[in-house]
Amino acid sequence: MTQPARAQEPGTTCTIHPGNEGAGVVRRTVLPGGLRIITETMPTVRSAAFGVWAGVGSRDEAPADAGASHYLEHVLFKGTRRRSALEISSAIDAVGGDLNAFTAKEYTCYYARVLDADLPLAADVVSDMVSASVNRPEDVEAERGVILEEIHMRDDDPGDLIHDEFSLALYGDAPLGRPILGTVESINALDRDRIHAYYREHYVPHNLVVAVAGNIDHDQVVRLVEQAFDGHLEGGERPKAPRIDGSPLPITPDVRVVDKDTEQAHVVLGGIGVSRTDDRRFALGVLNAALGGGMSSRLFQEIREKRGLAYSVYSYTSQYADTGVFGVYAGCQPGKVDEVLSICRDEVASAAERGITDEELERGKGQLRGAMVLGLEDTGSRMSRIGKSELVYESLLPVDEVLARIEAVTPDDIRAVAQDVLAAPQALTVIGPFGDRDFTL
Amino acid sequence: MTQPARAQEPGTTCTIHPGNEGAGVVRRTVLPGGLRIITETMPTVRSAAFGVWAGVGSRDEAPADAGASHYLEHVLFKGTRRRSALEISSAIDAVGGDLNAFTAKEYTCYYARVLDADLPLAADVVSDMVSASVNRPEDVEAERGVILEEIHMRDDDPGDLIHDEFSLALYGDAPLGRPILGTVESINALDRDRIHAYYREHYVPHNLVVAVAGNIDHDQVVRLVEQAFDGHLEGGERPKAPRIDGSPLPITPDVRVVDKDTEQAHVVLGGIGVSRTDDRRFALGVLNAALGGGMSSRLFQEIREKRGLAYSVYSYTSQYADTGVFGVYAGCQPGKVDEVLSICRDEVASAAERGITDEELERGKGQLRGAMVLGLEDTGSRMSRIGKSELVYESLLPVDEVLARIEAVTPDDIRAVAQDVLAAPQALTVIGPFGDRDFTL
Repeated sequence: MTQPARAQEPGTTCTIHPGNEGAGVVRRTVLPGGLRIITETMPTVRSAAFGVWAGVGSRDEAPADAGASHYLEHVLFKGTRRRSALEISSAIDAVGGDLNAFTAKEYTCYYARVLDADLPLAADVVSDMVSASVNRPEDVEAERGVILEEIHMRDDDPGDLIHDEFSLALYGDAPLGRPILGTVESINALDRDRIHAYYREHYVPHNLVVAVAGNIDHDQVVRLVEQAFDGHLEGGERPKAPRIDGSPLPITPDVRVVDKDTEQAHVVLGGIGVSRTDDRRFALGVLNAALGGGMSSRLFQEIREKRGLAYSVYSYTSQYADTGVFGVYAGCQPGKVDEVLSICRDEVASAAERGITDEELERGKGQLRGAMVLGLEDTGSRMSRIGKSELVYESLLPVDEVLARIEAVTPDDIRAVAQDVLAAPQALTVIGPFGDRDFTL
Repeated sequence: MTQPARAQEPGTTCTIHPGNEGAGVVRRTVLPGGLRIITETMPTVRSAAFGVWAGVGSRDEAPADAGASHYLEHVLFKGTRRRSALEISSAIDAVGGDLNAFTAKEYTCYYARVLDADLPLAADVVSDMVSASVNRPEDVEAERGVILEEIHMRDDDPGDLIHDEFSLALYGDAPLGRPILGTVESINALDRDRIHAYYREHYVPHNLVVAVAGNIDHDQVVRLVEQAFDGHLEGGERPKAPRIDGSPLPITPDVRVVDKDTEQAHVVLGGIGVSRTDDRRFALGVLNAALGGGMSSRLFQEIREKRGLAYSVYSYTSQYADTGVFGVYAGCQPGKVDEVLSICRDEVASAAERGITDEELERGKGQLRGAMVLGLEDTGSRMSRIGKSELVYESLLPVDEVLARIEAVTPDDIRAVAQDVLAAPQALTVIGPFGDRDFTL
């Protein structure tokens, strides 16, 4: 692990990773007011991805603020002191760039991907949106309708809805259990004053990271950010210690059945995984690959390839600061849901008891290694890796070290994490035309 | 346009595009049996995308074969003379590659994206799948269930279903009107003999293009393909002339209302656009950008930004050999559907009558240019561009020429294509809780 930003003197720049012949050089500047700027060079591409990461997400919301992080993300596109909503979108559309944002449980990201010559424009627009939003009452009102439509769209897509329902089954009414979008009730209850106060509280220099990857020059990026954030580089509280020091959440595994008139039944079966700093995460990644991470995985082979019971079936992991999720998803005919659930339970139990074969271990390692390297060829994914790492870890694990940690996973590591994660209490969520039928774990 | 493959002597290799300092070199080899191999060099990446494109899709299906192209695509993953389904997926999973396929109305593509060192493996696996599939009866049976689940999943997602319903509204029961997935009835009626005959008829050397992009060497690719296709490089009919010589389809614009108990109403309003060789396609692209192609577009501004009526609203174009589609999509509250449709109609009519402003013209050109260049940084999209072009045009329009054609679009071109496309008869499709309510165009 590299030196954390907390240990770096404000107003200085350091090289975090030396790179190789000018490529993959990672540098970090901490401005005097606490804003962090991290960049990675990719001299052979002709584009750049410019992102601003805010250390706020749905798990930071009090119950009365449910959905505020995501609502605010929408409002930040509506105008600044210098630009209207149309001027923001026109500027990036005119150069064929992508401008977008997303809100997660622990962070929010705004980014633009543009040709390298357009980096000054992208840096100015995105920095302006994030640092100088005016959050006008009429814009907050208009955007309420958009967010309610986003909620309705999610409700109409059972393969999307199931994941929000599963979070509730696993974490209950704790912040991690609640949907990022909020609810119709909570969105209707939020007003401009609350949204604006939320913005003032969380969008402060100490809680923001600017991340840039592509054909860029670090010093130029720092100058562009200083200009664009003009007047918004000081102030605000330093946030509490990063969440990686948090304590585990109370967990309330549960069975949830949502009756819905759908063609397919959707199921998620799963439980608590590992946190993002847990040393077992590499072993869990390999185990996940073998159990449900690809077409050669046990669940895909048993449920889809051999029996033709599902089109979509997979397992997955999510990591948070102090906890994580391991889950299995399948969509199938309602009349086949018991058969599919039975196979899922058997495969989970079998892996919990006996781990995986040596062949699956080697294949899982290769799968993680290859996917990691292939996933780092575009500027957007490089930007995300450094920005998210800086925000949530305050440091960056070099790619070579990640690959070495994957390679070092042993059969004993797999058996241990399989026992810890797969043999622990599970939660189950089912959506489909089931009336008041009971399901058991 | 470059020389078409038809004019290239079988057994020869030619350089289609000289590239620049070893990058962007496009070469084509036509093997003696008619298989075409086209490659593009990207020496600064560490990966390669290997694809095989077959000139067959849902529009080639007789009514009794509806869904056969896509069904066959699934079956090709189930095993060859040399490999079981598990051996196919394991080989690519073990190196962390992506192995996938998709079926469209006019073509089917199978591809793997891997680290450059794994190209021989990817070439062998994908070529083997496509050229030596055994299509065992039990595999055809098992895959039937998977495809029926894919159909049910589409039926449960109204934002996906609406596009299949709109094709029916626009093209009626013509082949282009039918869904790529087929129907529950047509899938249940297809059997192994029919699937296998379809495979033998369409997967012949003259009807296949191998496309490869990345850190690759053309001559090595040719050797790999010759080895992997061993015994399957000869035979089969030369297909009829490419579809670009086809005549326009009969069109039956229609209003379709699908009653469904959803939270949102989904609408598509649109009509016939331009074919993929139509000179007006660049002007229609710019017009589409201005009308509904981005956040700064008229439809996004009017429906989402100002009024907050929708989360998702956009216009789009699709091109086929002899026809095309221009459509407008929006998802909104069922009670707002008349207001949203009214705005859509007004914006379409206004653009048909008055075209777009000079500012919108310049922005639309910039948007197309930037998106094109940004979209060509990864190996998968470069592979797709050359493979699809070779298959459907038998030649390749260089990127610089595409950019020049976009730049050359004039206000008169926009007015003319707006008149041709937007003032022509439209079709309308609505999904939502509307019972037997009537909608009119």
